[in-house]
Amino acid sequence: MRRAAVIGVGVTKFGKHDRTSAELFAEAARDALADAELPPSAVQALYYGNVVGGETEKQLHTGPQAASVLGIPTVPTTRFEAACASSHAAFRHAVMEVAAGLSDVVLVGGAERVLNVSTAEATEYFAYASDAVWEQSVGLTFPGVFALIARAHMTKHGTTEEQMAHVAVKNHRHGALNPKAQFQKEITLEEVLASAYVADPLKLYDCCPFTDGGAAVVLVSEEIARRRRRAIWVLGSAAASDSMLMHDKRDLARVPATERAAAAAYRQAGLGPENVDVVELHDCFTIAEIVATEGLGLFEPGSGGIAAEKGWTSLGGKVPVNTSGGLKAKGHPIGATGAAQIVEVVTQLRGEAGPRQVEGARIGLTHTLGGNTATVLVSLFGRD
Amino acid sequence: MRRAAVIGVGVTKFGKHDRTSAELFAEAARDALADAELPPSAVQALYYGNVVGGETEKQLHTGPQAASVLGIPTVPTTRFEAACASSHAAFRHAVMEVAAGLSDVVLVGGAERVLNVSTAEATEYFAYASDAVWEQSVGLTFPGVFALIARAHMTKHGTTEEQMAHVAVKNHRHGALNPKAQFQKEITLEEVLASAYVADPLKLYDCCPFTDGGAAVVLVSEEIARRRRRAIWVLGSAAASDSMLMHDKRDLARVPATERAAAAAYRQAGLGPENVDVVELHDCFTIAEIVATEGLGLFEPGSGGIAAEKGWTSLGGKVPVNTSGGLKAKGHPIGATGAAQIVEVVTQLRGEAGPRQVEGARIGLTHTLGGNTATVLVSLFGRD
Repeated sequence: MRRAAVIGVGVTKFGKHDRTSAELFAEAARDALADAELPPSAVQALYYGNVVGGETEKQLHTGPQAASVLGIPTVPTTRFEAACASSHAAFRHAVMEVAAGLSDVVLVGGAERVLNVSTAEATEYFAYASDAVWEQSVGLTFPGVFALIARAHMTKHGTTEEQMAHVAVKNHRHGALNPKAQFQKEITLEEVLASAYVADPLKLYDCCPFTDGGAAVVLVSEEIARRRRRAIWVLGSAAASDSMLMHDKRDLARVPATERAAAAAYRQAGLGPENVDVVELHDCFTIAEIVATEGLGLFEPGSGGIAAEKGWTSLGGKVPVNTSGGLKAKGHPIGATGAAQIVEVVTQLRGEAGPRQVEGARIGLTHTLGGNTATVLVSLFGRD
Repeated sequence: MRRAAVIGVGVTKFGKHDRTSAELFAEAARDALADAELPPSAVQALYYGNVVGGETEKQLHTGPQAASVLGIPTVPTTRFEAACASSHAAFRHAVMEVAAGLSDVVLVGGAERVLNVSTAEATEYFAYASDAVWEQSVGLTFPGVFALIARAHMTKHGTTEEQMAHVAVKNHRHGALNPKAQFQKEITLEEVLASAYVADPLKLYDCCPFTDGGAAVVLVSEEIARRRRRAIWVLGSAAASDSMLMHDKRDLARVPATERAAAAAYRQAGLGPENVDVVELHDCFTIAEIVATEGLGLFEPGSGGIAAEKGWTSLGGKVPVNTSGGLKAKGHPIGATGAAQIVEVVTQLRGEAGPRQVEGARIGLTHTLGGNTATVLVSLFGRD
């Protein structure tokens, strides 16, 4: 199997856009190709993530759609849908294509458009990632799913609403340093705690926003990467699945798919959590970040809330998490999120993150979660 | 790269079902695993195709959903959506996973449920595979797309409505021999020609039906396949894309993506069209079969209509096409179709097709088309 590396990254401004998701992807892809110093004609395959295109844009078959809009219609293209982990799933399979020797230059990315529909509609469409028969039918939406997880974590480990609020404050502080973030604005602990309950114990500022945006990365074979100064190597990329249904999960305070995907990715890379310098993880809700920091082995089970409170995950802390602002402040255009996380980690490992740079970062990790914790992808990256 | 082989196949009855698509897939998958003499616990990855789950079942994230219903929730799973070619796209990427040495046993399949919504709704949802901005907005649905192709082929090559009708008659004759087919009923040339116009020059009997159903195949590494008597080898599997928009296509009488995917698959296999004994191809409309037989190189450009008229594609003809009944008579549960075509070709190459057996078939080909001819997959199979 051949090694693969990322040599180009691009991301749109996250927020509200009056363009199709394919157009948003094309903007990010053009930036990624320019960054890679490659023309679009060099792309041999497109791996594309998109989730609710059918619902918000009446658009399925979004892979060839994106390729056509980008101007590379004859490049073989595949669309992946793994709920919020879609473009990370695309990335993992793209690594397989390069590793298997089928292509030397693969474009990977994703995009989503949701701010063209109402919040109620977007909430309903996102809930399609949970079980239609047993969960949607009783009104379970994603704030509800993560409220259940939060309550379980509070009960089992003593995690507090204040600790969750610390995640929001930290990610907004990071997001204020990221010109592509949806919210470039710091918030206070008091503001988070005073915000309205969305699904008890989660309040408005515990939740990531709805977001339009696109992200792309250029993945190449070792042979091409060796000739580039700024190549960032893929050290591991793994997926894990878990039961769709909340009532089939044995311990709501854990996300076993995170633990399994992380174990597999660490094994591929020959690394452990102690080696990781910078992390982009799936903080769709503040509790999701706390549970993920534990599942990735960054902190002991049950201590993720303490880590947030003590600032261990902040820029300057033990292991900076979500330097981009995370889904919470950077925004969460669901089909683009996995790729956007890779954009941030690659930028960090290149030492190009400016005011939010983690000094001396050599190893980075991205973690993306889909649906009711039923899909998780974890990838590890390193610089030479 | 390692070789891969199919050692188990399963397909539901095609037609109307009152079960979810995940349940339909699970039935097919259990049959495929029993056929492979493997327990579900042997599966290391699930590659899954589904198209309009969001629209007809309010269900996205259908990969883990299918795995959960099948009872293998912790198996890493990926959903592919490439319009009507979805489960063939899943199959090609699954071959990559086995070839790259990541897994030895991969379950591939797909399912679709559409007969729970009205024909008007299903027609609209299928049209989401064409461009939302430029095509859906002016009322272009799939019968219209293929009517344009038919008219171009008639103008350029003199193809007739009678020749197209021969495709329908032949596929119904084959479908009558397939107990899993939606229509197990022969029809006459006169009936086809007397049926109502859906989109001139295409009449009702030129069109495949809406269908519920599931299909699955078990793909394994060479090491495992060598120990099985009935293993059918994957000799090649290739994808090609093309412009989404009809107005960007230079010659509507051709499907360039079919030509490119076929060329790549033949190259991988070291074979040509003259070596192929049995073909399952994408006859969503009768004209689609005619154009595909040309694009696959089975007949000269422009002579696909003549081939249909002369019976060259019939059981007992030069190269039997769609012995299963094809999409036209077997039915077209879009997410399952690519896998179901593989089920038929594997059954033929094993010599287990009963009354529709192609005697001595050694090499088989499957061809699946997605959307406005923007995605095509071609795979080649062979027995020892």
